[in-house]
Amino acid sequence: MSYDLWYWPNIQGRGEFVRLALEGAGIPYRDRAREDGAEALMRDLLARQGFKPFAPPYLVDGDFVIGQVAHILAWLSDRHGLGAGSLETDLQLIQLQLTITDVVAETHDVHHPVGADKYYHDQKPEALRAAASFRSARIPKYLGYFEAALGVNDGPFVLGKKWTPVDTSLFQLVEGLTYAFPRRMGALKAAYPRLYAMHGAVTEIDGIAAYLSSDRRIPFNEDGIFRHYPELDAE
Amino acid sequence: MSYDLWYWPNIQGRGEFVRLALEGAGIPYRDRAREDGAEALMRDLLARQGFKPFAPPYLVDGDFVIGQVAHILAWLSDRHGLGAGSLETDLQLIQLQLTITDVVAETHDVHHPVGADKYYHDQKPEALRAAASFRSARIPKYLGYFEAALGVNDGPFVLGKKWTPVDTSLFQLVEGLTYAFPRRMGALKAAYPRLYAMHGAVTEIDGIAAYLSSDRRIPFNEDGIFRHYPELDAE
Repeated sequence: MSYDLWYWPNIQGRGEFVRLALEGAGIPYRDRAREDGAEALMRDLLARQGFKPFAPPYLVDGDFVIGQVAHILAWLSDRHGLGAGSLETDLQLIQLQLTITDVVAETHDVHHPVGADKYYHDQKPEALRAAASFRSARIPKYLGYFEAALGVNDGPFVLGKKWTPVDTSLFQLVEGLTYAFPRRMGALKAAYPRLYAMHGAVTEIDGIAAYLSSDRRIPFNEDGIFRHYPELDAE
Repeated sequence: MSYDLWYWPNIQGRGEFVRLALEGAGIPYRDRAREDGAEALMRDLLARQGFKPFAPPYLVDGDFVIGQVAHILAWLSDRHGLGAGSLETDLQLIQLQLTITDVVAETHDVHHPVGADKYYHDQKPEALRAAASFRSARIPKYLGYFEAALGVNDGPFVLGKKWTPVDTSLFQLVEGLTYAFPRRMGALKAAYPRLYAMHGAVTEIDGIAAYLSSDRRIPFNEDGIFRHYPELDAE
């Protein structure tokens, strides 16, 4: 059995949160658009009937299709025992994952405050103002929230010794914010010791270590969610 | 048994999606900050320990707390039989609900493209550009997606004859977009017959009809998600 993951082939983007969970857990999957190209992805999504996903990424298992990152990860967790195994805690993990979805969307909107239908260079003055707000108000608010969540158990992961897709997603959030805002994240780093301990522990998960050193890990670039535009960064 | 709903007391906002599901299903709840004020909400959220919600709205049932609108609605659906009762379809309903979450966030960001930490009048030039993109590219994309979802069954609701929180949420989306962008929605209305048929059918659900005519339904205003700034609207 192998899942088909459909996501844009040239970026980490939202698909990366799914890739990391699959890779960390050693769950077989085909990254279909990396095999067949972006046009194959667009054709596949357009051809789907019924309650189809609004946008990539989505995961396919035979006739079953599921979209929305947090939803895909909750479903994978349930199927593959990646969660806590208690309903209440699993619901809390989903709540955390949905909050990661929120900050990821906000991070994207920093370089696209006017709209995703226009290029960054056509909305740069707006992005400069959005980035100042995001750096000062939003990054600390979100990181503080996740730091507190990592303090509920004894670490290094949210549940303690067992990692879940929330941890690989928080790892990716730290990676992405550090790529996009290296000066701001450098200035903030010391304030979030649990977050960085978790980040280090995720890199030591066997499947993640193998993935990060493989060519399956697409480098960050300025077509993805996390983009490094130096003019948007400051301490 | 009665739930405690905690949300800002003076706006519909994100809390309204939860209120509508509770009211439609006749599930008892106390709208706590409407009883005790916004400061009580801030005190309650700050005092919570463990994996607490990032932000209102959240629902409390004894020691159990759940945040994130789509997550609250999925949980209520499971507990109170508001969904399809088949796993695959219930997952598809969650996928639709999460896409409503996305468009609601985008709608908010139209009047706050720079950041939620600044007033609208301090980001009006940016909002004018964001609104043009949102009206031309995003509203039709989302409404077309939901129109297609409403065509999977025979209507008037997403599942056919049975309404779910996805329908009350889509009702609220249409209400809110029509309040915020009356000219644009007026121009688009004829293109989405299923969406407007669903909207009408939701107003006829007993609990919803009673709610909409009660003083529990807070009128739309310019502190909420859906704001009517005439300069942001056009056909």
